[in-house]
Amino acid sequence: MAVGTTSGLKRVEVEQLVREVLKQKLRAPSGRTSSVTHGPPHPLVVNVSARHLHVTQGDLEILFGPGATLTKMKDLYQQGEFASEQLVTVVGPRQRMIPNVRILGPVRSYTQVELSYTDGIYLGVDLPLRTSGDHASTPGISILGPKGAINATRGVIRAERHVHMSTEDMNHYGVKDGDYLKLKIDGPCGVLFDRVKVRYHPKVILEVHIDTDEGNACDLESATKIELIK
Amino acid sequence: MAVGTTSGLKRVEVEQLVREVLKQKLRAPSGRTSSVTHGPPHPLVVNVSARHLHVTQGDLEILFGPGATLTKMKDLYQQGEFASEQLVTVVGPRQRMIPNVRILGPVRSYTQVELSYTDGIYLGVDLPLRTSGDHASTPGISILGPKGAINATRGVIRAERHVHMSTEDMNHYGVKDGDYLKLKIDGPCGVLFDRVKVRYHPKVILEVHIDTDEGNACDLESATKIELIK
Repeated sequence: MAVGTTSGLKRVEVEQLVREVLKQKLRAPSGRTSSVTHGPPHPLVVNVSARHLHVTQGDLEILFGPGATLTKMKDLYQQGEFASEQLVTVVGPRQRMIPNVRILGPVRSYTQVELSYTDGIYLGVDLPLRTSGDHASTPGISILGPKGAINATRGVIRAERHVHMSTEDMNHYGVKDGDYLKLKIDGPCGVLFDRVKVRYHPKVILEVHIDTDEGNACDLESATKIELIK
Repeated sequence: MAVGTTSGLKRVEVEQLVREVLKQKLRAPSGRTSSVTHGPPHPLVVNVSARHLHVTQGDLEILFGPGATLTKMKDLYQQGEFASEQLVTVVGPRQRMIPNVRILGPVRSYTQVELSYTDGIYLGVDLPLRTSGDHASTPGISILGPKGAINATRGVIRAERHVHMSTEDMNHYGVKDGDYLKLKIDGPCGVLFDRVKVRYHPKVILEVHIDTDEGNACDLESATKIELIK
């Protein structure tokens, strides 16, 4: 019996929906941003990252065969990022598996599996809380594709909740790369998330990423107001 | 393949461990409570409720056979409450199932299934946020036991996060039944939970209940400080 509690496709669709609703709710009413004197440079968008992985080209070819490439299923919010059509199965040390884990593209210089603590407990993996790419002392996992398998020796993490910001966004919030903000979600399951890490990149636009445990804890879909605060 | 992401037994054991650690961390250093002039009447204990159910005697006998009784596996924190040895399987509208869902005893005047949103998404049940026993307009679910099955027509909920309090506890925090407090969890995944409902009963002692999504979102096991605030 399949385990895909929040299979990539469904979750991505939910994310897309949430994103659109939030965009409508949170975008400045004026279409002319020049008329907003002290408003934020970008609307505050919060997305829930379902379990997913990033792969190197080499690992992709082991899993999907020589010359394999990631094919786009859907664009993500950040330009150039996409949910691919490629799905794999991860198998933990208790011989439990989660099928239909989606690869996000494009390929990276490392292979990384991002899971929730709910997933980690199920699989029997004690997940460290990490920023993407920080793989020192992280556990591994087995990854099965249609053409081959990898025994990744590291790179399995719970992603630390974070907010992607450009220079404009950091200036607006008065923060710098690596600082922490709080994310306040009002609603029937209201939560104030502490320790939302600021991650700078010149080409991103403002976007908070939380995982499914966090998104379900606060019932993001029922949020009545969302704020980033210092 | 089994789905029991956080099977009753394991989670109960984890809860027991967390409870013991928290008791040690949070209990007043003095063994003589009379020496604590303005201290709380009871230590603040936060427990994670994994998915579970409560059943009527009638439903228990359908699931486990005529004359069946709940047998105790482990005492819970509130006197008289216990995790039973009886496990059932719940089956949702998408024909997905979660096995090994534990019944908590003693039997009640209603049958109720308490799930996380993560479970609800997996099963395809849109869970309403409710206080125990409030079953108006709640969905149903199929429940399978070793001797029979029930098609419960209602009573499937996400339990609203809450704190059990006696009169002493309410006096200490300056609240009354039905009020809301905030629960602040400090640590690497720090969270301030808004809307923790006060639930009075003369025979309970202070205990906060959150679900597995909430417990995993804040990584309760790594908490460095826990407070209930107004």
